[in-house]
Amino acid sequence: MDKSDSRIILALDVLEKERAIQISSEISEYISFIKINWPLILSAGVGIISDISRIKPVICDLKLADIPNTHRLITGIIKRSGAYGVIAHSFVGSDSLQEISKTEPSLKVFSVVAMSHKGASELMDQQVDKLIRISKDANVYGVVAPANNLEMLKYIRSKLPDKVIISPGAGAQGGDPVKAISAGADFVIIGRSLYESSHPGQEAEEIYERLCTIPKRRPLSN
Amino acid sequence: MDKSDSRIILALDVLEKERAIQISSEISEYISFIKINWPLILSAGVGIISDISRIKPVICDLKLADIPNTHRLITGIIKRSGAYGVIAHSFVGSDSLQEISKTEPSLKVFSVVAMSHKGASELMDQQVDKLIRISKDANVYGVVAPANNLEMLKYIRSKLPDKVIISPGAGAQGGDPVKAISAGADFVIIGRSLYESSHPGQEAEEIYERLCTIPKRRPLSN
Repeated sequence: MDKSDSRIILALDVLEKERAIQISSEISEYISFIKINWPLILSAGVGIISDISRIKPVICDLKLADIPNTHRLITGIIKRSGAYGVIAHSFVGSDSLQEISKTEPSLKVFSVVAMSHKGASELMDQQVDKLIRISKDANVYGVVAPANNLEMLKYIRSKLPDKVIISPGAGAQGGDPVKAISAGADFVIIGRSLYESSHPGQEAEEIYERLCTIPKRRPLSN
Repeated sequence: MDKSDSRIILALDVLEKERAIQISSEISEYISFIKINWPLILSAGVGIISDISRIKPVICDLKLADIPNTHRLITGIIKRSGAYGVIAHSFVGSDSLQEISKTEPSLKVFSVVAMSHKGASELMDQQVDKLIRISKDANVYGVVAPANNLEMLKYIRSKLPDKVIISPGAGAQGGDPVKAISAGADFVIIGRSLYESSHPGQEAEEIYERLCTIPKRRPLSN
């Protein structure tokens, strides 16, 4: 059975290079992308991006939030390492987001429009419309919206019918992958419940099968 | 003459390890801290933090803007590498900021309350009061405020009389170091006009001398 249509992104939140490669290889057939973040890059070095890219396309979850010139420099480095996409914040403004695509037009930019930790309620939640506006202005490829806040996820989908939505917070963090996809996410980002499972491949296959029962919003492409 | 009271922070925005060490050594006597950011860490590896720390205390300008757990992991890694301080965003909320100090109480946290690039006018500028509020709630050690927006800098100083303010955007980016210190900054962050100078030591000494003419707001400590 061809599983290239998987709507699972693996959140590879581990620190050791060998373990990162082992887990990725073990469940690669059930996932479409692998998301890595700063702790792994700091521990294993920037070369981990190319190592993991050999298994599946890599989305670098860097939560970039700096001035355009710093985004330009970081973009150049991760693109040379083979990154497929990058996650950046929209609140710093459209010029910082646009600088990424200007530097590497083929790198997919996913902007953060909502987060699900407690602190997001202090400012970000109230600014979601503005964050969506900035993301539209910057013409990003996709956005990041929480799988464990379904009302917010539905709202963001209603405002951004044409963007790819990737959703963290499914699995161990409380969100349900099926509910997140049904609410409008294109991909769910799942970490601990996969890599802490004693049978990661089996766990991934089960989630994959459950997600297959939900009709596709539209054809997805890698 | 003892220059340990310097109000200059070197912004070490270069990509090569050897050049980073060479510049830092060349002007070390005129500066109090060295700020490094992601492009250098990505290029040279996380070990650059300990290399540069041997010259002057290092502030890692990571613009952290993630969930508390990711901040915890990054904090552990950079503190083990010898970092003195870290720059993080306040807009993600006080829990993410607090997690840094909770993980490593000795690491100085500087939160971003204003930025000076064009995109900052889209959302951040209007939210400065809220960003200050979050920074206060998180009890950060200091804040980052732009040297090339003196009105904003004065406003932030008036709202945060007791925080250490460090100010980027002085020098090649248009801000004047003397004006920034006079407007309430404790330290100015200067990059290109130092490391692109044909005589970095002389340039640093001149700025140091000019800043000495301004009365100290209060005793500063490293």
